[in-house]
Amino acid sequence: MTNLINDLCNSQEFIGRHNGPNSNDQQTMLDIINSLSDSKADSLDQLIEQTVPANIRLQAPMNLSAPMSEADMLTKMKDIAQLNKVQRTFIGQGYYNTFTPNVILRNVLENPGWYTAYTPYQPEISQGRLESLLNYQQMVIDLTGMDIANASLLDEATAAGEALTLCKRAGKSKSNVFFVADDVHPQTIEVVKTRAEFIGFEVMIGNVDNLPQQDIFGALLQYPSTTGEVRDLTDIIAAAQANKTLVTVATDLLASTLLKPAGEMGADVVIGSAQRFGVPVGYGGPHAAFMATREKHKRTMPGRVIGVSIDSKGKQALRMAMQTREQHIRREKATSNICTAQALLANMASFYAVYHGAEGLRTIARRTHHFTAILAAGLQSAGHKLVHETFFDTITIDTQEQTERLYQAAQHAGINLRKLPSQIGISLDETTKAEDIEALFTVFSVEGNVETFSNDIAANEFSAIPTACQRTSEFLTHPVFNTHRSETQMMRYLKKLENKDFSLTHGMIPLGSCTMKLNAAAEMIPVTWPEFGSIHPFAPLDQAAGYTALADSLKKQLCEITGYDEFSLQPNSGASGEYAGLIAIQRYHQSRGEGHRNVCLIPSSAHGTNPATASMVSMKVVVVMCDEYGNIDMQDLAAKIDKHHSELSSIMITYPSTHGVYEEQVQKVCDMVHAAGGQVYLDGANMNAQVGLTNPGVIGGDVSHLNLHKTFCIPHGGGGPGMGPIGVKSHLAPFLPGHIENGVEGKEYAVSAADLGSASILPISWAYITMMGGTGLTEATKIAILNANYIMERLRPHYPVLYRGHNGRVAHECIIDIRPLKEATGISEEDIAKRLMDYGFHAPTMSFPVAGTLMVEPTESEDKAELDRFCDAMIAIRQEMDKVQQGEWPLDNNPLVNAPHTQADLMSDTWDHPYTREEACFPSAQAKDAKYWPTVNRVDNVYGDRNLICSCPSIESYQ
Amino acid sequence: MTNLINDLCNSQEFIGRHNGPNSNDQQTMLDIINSLSDSKADSLDQLIEQTVPANIRLQAPMNLSAPMSEADMLTKMKDIAQLNKVQRTFIGQGYYNTFTPNVILRNVLENPGWYTAYTPYQPEISQGRLESLLNYQQMVIDLTGMDIANASLLDEATAAGEALTLCKRAGKSKSNVFFVADDVHPQTIEVVKTRAEFIGFEVMIGNVDNLPQQDIFGALLQYPSTTGEVRDLTDIIAAAQANKTLVTVATDLLASTLLKPAGEMGADVVIGSAQRFGVPVGYGGPHAAFMATREKHKRTMPGRVIGVSIDSKGKQALRMAMQTREQHIRREKATSNICTAQALLANMASFYAVYHGAEGLRTIARRTHHFTAILAAGLQSAGHKLVHETFFDTITIDTQEQTERLYQAAQHAGINLRKLPSQIGISLDETTKAEDIEALFTVFSVEGNVETFSNDIAANEFSAIPTACQRTSEFLTHPVFNTHRSETQMMRYLKKLENKDFSLTHGMIPLGSCTMKLNAAAEMIPVTWPEFGSIHPFAPLDQAAGYTALADSLKKQLCEITGYDEFSLQPNSGASGEYAGLIAIQRYHQSRGEGHRNVCLIPSSAHGTNPATASMVSMKVVVVMCDEYGNIDMQDLAAKIDKHHSELSSIMITYPSTHGVYEEQVQKVCDMVHAAGGQVYLDGANMNAQVGLTNPGVIGGDVSHLNLHKTFCIPHGGGGPGMGPIGVKSHLAPFLPGHIENGVEGKEYAVSAADLGSASILPISWAYITMMGGTGLTEATKIAILNANYIMERLRPHYPVLYRGHNGRVAHECIIDIRPLKEATGISEEDIAKRLMDYGFHAPTMSFPVAGTLMVEPTESEDKAELDRFCDAMIAIRQEMDKVQQGEWPLDNNPLVNAPHTQADLMSDTWDHPYTREEACFPSAQAKDAKYWPTVNRVDNVYGDRNLICSCPSIESYQ
Repeated sequence: MTNLINDLCNSQEFIGRHNGPNSNDQQTMLDIINSLSDSKADSLDQLIEQTVPANIRLQAPMNLSAPMSEADMLTKMKDIAQLNKVQRTFIGQGYYNTFTPNVILRNVLENPGWYTAYTPYQPEISQGRLESLLNYQQMVIDLTGMDIANASLLDEATAAGEALTLCKRAGKSKSNVFFVADDVHPQTIEVVKTRAEFIGFEVMIGNVDNLPQQDIFGALLQYPSTTGEVRDLTDIIAAAQANKTLVTVATDLLASTLLKPAGEMGADVVIGSAQRFGVPVGYGGPHAAFMATREKHKRTMPGRVIGVSIDSKGKQALRMAMQTREQHIRREKATSNICTAQALLANMASFYAVYHGAEGLRTIARRTHHFTAILAAGLQSAGHKLVHETFFDTITIDTQEQTERLYQAAQHAGINLRKLPSQIGISLDETTKAEDIEALFTVFSVEGNVETFSNDIAANEFSAIPTACQRTSEFLTHPVFNTHRSETQMMRYLKKLENKDFSLTHGMIPLGSCTMKLNAAAEMIPVTWPEFGSIHPFAPLDQAAGYTALADSLKKQLCEITGYDEFSLQPNSGASGEYAGLIAIQRYHQSRGEGHRNVCLIPSSAHGTNPATASMVSMKVVVVMCDEYGNIDMQDLAAKIDKHHSELSSIMITYPSTHGVYEEQVQKVCDMVHAAGGQVYLDGANMNAQVGLTNPGVIGGDVSHLNLHKTFCIPHGGGGPGMGPIGVKSHLAPFLPGHIENGVEGKEYAVSAADLGSASILPISWAYITMMGGTGLTEATKIAILNANYIMERLRPHYPVLYRGHNGRVAHECIIDIRPLKEATGISEEDIAKRLMDYGFHAPTMSFPVAGTLMVEPTESEDKAELDRFCDAMIAIRQEMDKVQQGEWPLDNNPLVNAPHTQADLMSDTWDHPYTREEACFPSAQAKDAKYWPTVNRVDNVYGDRNLICSCPSIESYQ
Repeated sequence: MTNLINDLCNSQEFIGRHNGPNSNDQQTMLDIINSLSDSKADSLDQLIEQTVPANIRLQAPMNLSAPMSEADMLTKMKDIAQLNKVQRTFIGQGYYNTFTPNVILRNVLENPGWYTAYTPYQPEISQGRLESLLNYQQMVIDLTGMDIANASLLDEATAAGEALTLCKRAGKSKSNVFFVADDVHPQTIEVVKTRAEFIGFEVMIGNVDNLPQQDIFGALLQYPSTTGEVRDLTDIIAAAQANKTLVTVATDLLASTLLKPAGEMGADVVIGSAQRFGVPVGYGGPHAAFMATREKHKRTMPGRVIGVSIDSKGKQALRMAMQTREQHIRREKATSNICTAQALLANMASFYAVYHGAEGLRTIARRTHHFTAILAAGLQSAGHKLVHETFFDTITIDTQEQTERLYQAAQHAGINLRKLPSQIGISLDETTKAEDIEALFTVFSVEGNVETFSNDIAANEFSAIPTACQRTSEFLTHPVFNTHRSETQMMRYLKKLENKDFSLTHGMIPLGSCTMKLNAAAEMIPVTWPEFGSIHPFAPLDQAAGYTALADSLKKQLCEITGYDEFSLQPNSGASGEYAGLIAIQRYHQSRGEGHRNVCLIPSSAHGTNPATASMVSMKVVVVMCDEYGNIDMQDLAAKIDKHHSELSSIMITYPSTHGVYEEQVQKVCDMVHAAGGQVYLDGANMNAQVGLTNPGVIGGDVSHLNLHKTFCIPHGGGGPGMGPIGVKSHLAPFLPGHIENGVEGKEYAVSAADLGSASILPISWAYITMMGGTGLTEATKIAILNANYIMERLRPHYPVLYRGHNGRVAHECIIDIRPLKEATGISEEDIAKRLMDYGFHAPTMSFPVAGTLMVEPTESEDKAELDRFCDAMIAIRQEMDKVQQGEWPLDNNPLVNAPHTQADLMSDTWDHPYTREEACFPSAQAKDAKYWPTVNRVDNVYGDRNLICSCPSIESYQ
């Protein structure tokens, strides 16, 4: 096309929408940087040259398609989506059709107020989603009949993997054997086998009746079973426990409204998926898995647990009570590396329960069960033989040599069934109607009609549920589950919680390492298209051709961006990606007869997940020191390589380093490891500082995970979903994870329940990459670096900057050191973090990677005005610290230690502070113009730890 | 189906979602009513029997389909939607394809925070949308080159109708003739003809060059013309003005970025549509029309104008500065009856301008123009003859006998063109691409390629625009149009404004007569489906089969609900419906040779729009008195009928009356009017108190409009869209409005630009009726009455209730009389209204229908807890009034007269009030739990009136 047409068609428009500073602002920012820095940069490109080492720079632009407008991208996406074929599906196996209540769809899943929030590490500005997640825990506790629940895990299969190690951690058995009943969902078994193999446990798969006779540390049962059987497990569990076996039961939340819950049968751990509570199946995820356990095991619970505490004024306040496995504490002794949860999806599920209440859920369950009973009766009347007489929503038909014929007859009728060897499974759900049963009757040549069977069954509605398995206990009795029945009430509840929480809709969330950039509306729109939402992960592959096309295209894009040769999209979190990556390395060594290589070098600056992951694959972690600039100490590295030469498996490094610096010698590090026969795991956490400028392939990585929810715009969702695909060089490609379902053969281990992990959010990253093109992605990286250096230079006169690279530049983030200031003033990094809330900001990352520091990452999406607003706030806070230092304000009564301030603080007529109300709550023009209010004062962590309460407090206690 | 299946399938679930109180609450509320009232009601049905006169009750349930679940409704709606066929469309004629920026789509059009807000009559809690509407006015002022603009009108054609009467009101000519250029859009001409005919003006249609020679009071020109011509109108306008003719120019906002604006050519009034600024065409509406005029004519501007004033603390605050035509002032002398605007759509258009800015809009316009130039060059190269050499985005080809062949060739290629006699029109727009031009080249057998033509044109890009018509002036220079370029900035701006405004997401909006009920998410979802959004109103009818099916189904539903025989969906507001209804009556009289009947009886309690509408059809309004209970004075009625017997055209009554009472004698009123040869116009404003219990057919109405945006759940949108279809008895059916486009023949007048009015929001009402079914709709009416009586009884011990009907019941709303309390305490109804904001409520309707009162309408969607919260607030306020009365608080310094209180009030360290900060801002538990904050103190109306500023203030003045 002509230049004029190209100019006017503005296919690059989205780049300017995603990136914050326009070209004028960029120049102004460069000028300001130049006025503050020793190094001068005439242009953005020169700044980049001064920042990113020349030896790792890409020699040519990325070979990606040209930038695309939002409208063109959506048109192309729609074409892809329509390759998926939505059929009536009764496959079950852990995934069920569900109705997302529209009020939740619109006001949560499609609302940036919910999906752009960060993990609630700062509880004072997160009380909305903390309340919702507490509701989630209460819902799981009630429905499972257990004592305590966490605030979600990644999927049912990985929850089983977490249960495996929990049983080992919490149990007293010396055995190394874990029993898995053969009627557990096969994808769960697969993931458990992977977990067990690499951590060094033996998995014994067998009939549940054989369980009590084994000397085993833990067991996993499924109730109802994968083929639908409902049986009382009480005696089996008791017998196993008598043998020091901890018993985990995978269960179903909807079934639990009618069935005696697994907790009441004595289970030690109960896991499962909350997907069918209003979260679309979406080809396998993301959904929230749950885990519940006994009071006595609570301290060993993986993942995040929300708890009730008080704030500094004694008012009830929620917080994340447990999250210890995540970064700091266990490191190389960890048996779990879980970080992110599925907060957004857990919230949806908990709102589903809030909206329906016990009565509504029971009605849904009874309907589902009644249709199942009708189906069972019909099939039996036509001479079909059921494998189990008991069931909730799933029946399995013993079809023998008729299997293929019947399966194909159903396919012909547009119906997906579950095909097993010699059997066919049918699972019904919330969406099943009488017409569906009639259609199934036709397929199976049943002559009777639905109405007659219904009348026959009505008198004894629950006869297919053994009496011992019928639920008698109440659930969801808390007021929150009994006061939001009308849509108006529900909408206001959702909005009320939303308005408590700080999200990207309010202002910058400058979290170092977490990359809170724009999640554009155009990227989010396809996520709730039914063509993506309604595909079962184990549907016939030809019905998922849209997903396959999308995944292939995304993998190709990611290969080009990273310099890798192949990608797996299966890992559904960054930690899961690390895990899959290290397994790939180990399997590669094994394939070469070097399975003994088990030393993993990890720099001292590494994210805690790195050593935890290494531990999960039975590696021995050897720490490599860093020098005073935060760079890897090359001498120490050489010494460690030398020492562990023959056992060296790999090194895990992050680039740019977690210190926010482009280390100059990174290629040399890789070369040294390779020379010793090791592999390089390049943590992709900071990939956003590489895109278009360098890449893991150039640097020398063999495998990396990418945090799609950071670099590639999947929103944080208030604490999940995450997404951690891994890329590998070709020699590792044969060792990528695979999946037993859907005919993906030749792969031997799985790390997630579904082959594409959290498939339904992949459109977000594809949309971002497609709209930005190579040009836009590269510009985003450059502006991320520009923004970070701008903030760094503006703050440097006021705060010590801990690490800078060559030419005094930082990468995409910078660490400011509060330790000397604390020494001088008594004000801590936490005080600053909380005080920023008064100014209308979320705190930067606190005390990571270095205790006593704040790590600031602005991302490319923030514009100059917002950066200035943040810098002005930080500088004003520095001046407040001076006032404390100078004694103008006492150390125990100043706006910093009292931060954050709330409306309740202002309400009182007495004001016992040496600063004014205005200084407290409205310290900036922005706060005066559009104040964001923390809803509680500083939360008391010690109180919360001492009084661990992780269920909904009574409504009175809220007063 | 069996009872069990029916119970479990819960097809009535939505009824419980829409209605607030559950059955337990209903019983509790009845008990409380019984404890407070002289009449006792054992059941809801008995309460209804005591309230609604037996003689008008329906004898059988409505014959509507059974209630339907949200999911089933959406499935059915999708089937209907897919009957529409979206083709590439170049018809133009006032409607253009556009890209709705996704950030606006998601965060405005799909966000209840925006669409559930009410008209900003209470400015203190509406500063967000007031700012956005002020931006809209500024945008229109800038682009048209005029002095002042209003905050939107219904569509371009009705805006022309409003311009017609403005020219008469504001001009000095004695002539009764209005000139309309023959190159104005035909649908505009049609509406202007209707307006002129019934108000008694003559329309002269002719070539624009004939204009100056005529003695006429006003003229309407179009620039660019409907066929695309761009010519300098300066001299024509000047000559007309010299002749006392006021000149209105219909123009196009996108064109105005490149063309010298009509204002700079001297126009007195400029009108047009803002549709192409990001609002989907949606088969004709709703979109925002605009009107701009000169400073000297501002006091005669129809519709709403937002102005800048100050609050009681002197801080800048926005308000509706002009809205005088709406209810009170002109009444039977009005020449306009306009009430609602298109606030939601005006906001979208103004945000579109905010997001693109002048530069972005110019790029879009240049692209559109350049493709048009390429198309023109191509067509000419192939020997086609253009009707005009000048153009912006529309060209017209002189196709003569080739017309049909070429038109069909385009149809065959999936392309809609505009077919004129012997000509074909092609209009391009924001979405046009090179491929489209290529496709058009194929249709018209053009051999050259786009690129070559582009290169030829590039050197002289604007050669098709006469030099005199090229824009040289700047526009959109205000900072608001220059600071929101990134999506992050835009999203935060949208959220910031949203969070300033009180909407149904915060709490009850108990506006009598305005019916702020739930707008369910499921009802809103289809509105943004492309199958509804992308159909041009003049597309071939077979491509709009979905709209036709939907409209037919909705009309059938409405006929059943109202007891009428036929419906027209054309009127796009309640006032427009009244207007169409009175025209139908007059045309009926004319058809019977009784065209002289021109007296319209209107009770003194009527809404001001009634007499205004009567005036617009040249009727003589005769007021009928009401008795002390607010009922029509039957004696006076008889006397007036007697007096005007032979000229009696009609009576306009509202039922239940605007006093919120079911008048017992309503049928007798109808009979008396009928006996005298008159027709009964039954205003549908209170239809929500009739549905399922009675209906206009039973009562005796001949014609009614329905406010779909009230009774049938179309949201108020912060001040529009509205929707006012009219139903008629069969004898009036031939006199319903019609439309010149799309082959709808045999109708002789139009009241809106598009045949189905605001077609794209009809799915909302259809969805509501379909999900509720007859059962649910009737239950909603009953609960609306229950809720109103509950509030009435709870308040009655504290406030005088002005009118009650038989048995002491009220209908769906009640009026509380503040006059005696004001007399006693000095506290006015306005003080109470403003004080309610401190408690977290929107005020009830103030001083309508009786000055000095508050009219409360809870609607059925509010639950008991919310009603109690409101009653508690009202009672607490009553106690506050007591304190003033008792001298505890001085009359000039108490929380009532100082209300509403803001954060700025709390900020100050000095507190000069005899009540506490807590009493000021946190007077209730709800306010403490989730405070909604008014953002300004009480707005000074007098200051605003004296200093009328209706454009954006400079950014400095916001400080």
